[in-house]
Amino acid sequence: MRQAGRYLPEYRAIRKTRSFHEVMRTPELACEVTLQPVDLVGVDAAILFSDILVIPEAMGLGLEMESGVGPRFDRTVRSAADVAGLKPVDPTVDLGYVMDALRLIRRELDGRVPLIGFAGAPWTLASYMIEGQGTKDFRHAKRLLMADPAAMTALLDKLTDAVGDFLVAQIEAGAQVVQLFDSWADALAPAEFRRFALPTYHRIIERVKPTGVPLILFARGAMWALPELAQTGADVLGIDWHIEPAEARRLAGDGVGLQGNLDPAALYLPPDEIRRRTESMIAGFGATGYIANLGHGIFQDTPVDSARAFVAAVKGHAG
Amino acid sequence: MRQAGRYLPEYRAIRKTRSFHEVMRTPELACEVTLQPVDLVGVDAAILFSDILVIPEAMGLGLEMESGVGPRFDRTVRSAADVAGLKPVDPTVDLGYVMDALRLIRRELDGRVPLIGFAGAPWTLASYMIEGQGTKDFRHAKRLLMADPAAMTALLDKLTDAVGDFLVAQIEAGAQVVQLFDSWADALAPAEFRRFALPTYHRIIERVKPTGVPLILFARGAMWALPELAQTGADVLGIDWHIEPAEARRLAGDGVGLQGNLDPAALYLPPDEIRRRTESMIAGFGATGYIANLGHGIFQDTPVDSARAFVAAVKGHAG
Repeated sequence: MRQAGRYLPEYRAIRKTRSFHEVMRTPELACEVTLQPVDLVGVDAAILFSDILVIPEAMGLGLEMESGVGPRFDRTVRSAADVAGLKPVDPTVDLGYVMDALRLIRRELDGRVPLIGFAGAPWTLASYMIEGQGTKDFRHAKRLLMADPAAMTALLDKLTDAVGDFLVAQIEAGAQVVQLFDSWADALAPAEFRRFALPTYHRIIERVKPTGVPLILFARGAMWALPELAQTGADVLGIDWHIEPAEARRLAGDGVGLQGNLDPAALYLPPDEIRRRTESMIAGFGATGYIANLGHGIFQDTPVDSARAFVAAVKGHAG
Repeated sequence: MRQAGRYLPEYRAIRKTRSFHEVMRTPELACEVTLQPVDLVGVDAAILFSDILVIPEAMGLGLEMESGVGPRFDRTVRSAADVAGLKPVDPTVDLGYVMDALRLIRRELDGRVPLIGFAGAPWTLASYMIEGQGTKDFRHAKRLLMADPAAMTALLDKLTDAVGDFLVAQIEAGAQVVQLFDSWADALAPAEFRRFALPTYHRIIERVKPTGVPLILFARGAMWALPELAQTGADVLGIDWHIEPAEARRLAGDGVGLQGNLDPAALYLPPDEIRRRTESMIAGFGATGYIANLGHGIFQDTPVDSARAFVAAVKGHAG
């Protein structure tokens, strides 16, 4: 909900002359679009404008942002040799533009709302690196995982280290909360999720824990795993819109915060219906240990007033 | 698992000179590729070679099968007026080629294995008709559903009638089991699933019930709804690979058959691992009221011997 994006005319105005990549890599522009949802919609936190694929890019895969097609890598990773050939990443150096953006945003926010950093989780990054682009069936990624689990594990190990370093570097640069997105967790069956995704969360959370900064873990499409996700040490679990709030709370237990989970499509409803749904969602999650949010990314053609109606409903409830 | 498809060289040989559409609409060719998995892989039932989009096509949308892009409609349905303009469908006339294929396949099978017919479920068909092509976010379909639920309901009503008629016509032409695929059930949050998908299952099952032919209902991605799916009157529920077999059985109860749910990617494993997984899956579901199958469509680059290893493991278990 707090994300910048194409639903804001002010964002589209900037993107008319600047590519996604240019905005992301230019701290002043990244700062400007990061602040837009705070200033224009009134959300209560700012989330860094960036992309989960900055780590694979820093590993040397060559990222192309083709309009209409989505991101695409020049090279793919489909063997142990490809994994061995990946460039080691030092986020403070190779992703210095992210840290510069975070420092600038913190200064500009001046304490108004907290700043959230983020990274893609290893499985999601690995599958993007293997496929080379967006995919519906994850055929190459899942074939590697089944046919050569050692190569997959080597890739995930590298990514787990890089993501941990990256989140810690973001925290040192000013992030006050960090979010770990396993956007493609839903491409894994339970056995593979437990073997190739869950252990990476544990390792990354262990790495971030000593900073004392809260971590939000979002394993999209793996809501069946909430009891196990609640044991990772994450402070908050992101909840997607496929599950009812009360059921999410039942599965996760009371020891962890929950964030979510309005279906972004609900912002196509009239404002009074948005308010009704939002209130029912909040009631379902229970008032404590809960962060109201959407259950996935906002649609580009969402009316800005509908986003504002959602924020107003959340704030009205809190007030 | 029983589906024809690109993993069979004998299928690819036919497709070298014939389009998907041509094979589907020519009873002799549809018969030939329907029988391939029975003859070449040894599966214990034949499933009609066809496509879920034949109903929208018969309603006048103009279907293009573009290679690499997937199916695409010339027209989309995005308003009450568009819904009103749809051609009424009489499956025995407008989809006569399907019935001809079924009659021919029954004759050629000569009792060797049962013949399964199928149809796409109304929500999946509706969303395809609204989007006009494959989609990742179902933005147009979900906007219509939220912003104009009356138009969506009118569209679903027409489709529910047509799908019911179509399945009954398939049964009259020789289908001995029918399957209802809601391939995109996972695009609906629980509230919308209950309002726009579940009632269509009830109505279609009521329509098919008097024929006495068993119906398999597959609501992909809605495994959370198994307790409600078990109350639809379906004889068997398809189980996708996102859920563990024992959990699926627990949610569905003992009053309904279950079919599934090996991750198609598991066919990239070595044969002994395929056998081990298959046996563990069968043990998880429990031996009664169960049909071993994959949990989704087979990958096109699946080794044929791996498909055979799966079938052998299932038959070995039964034997």
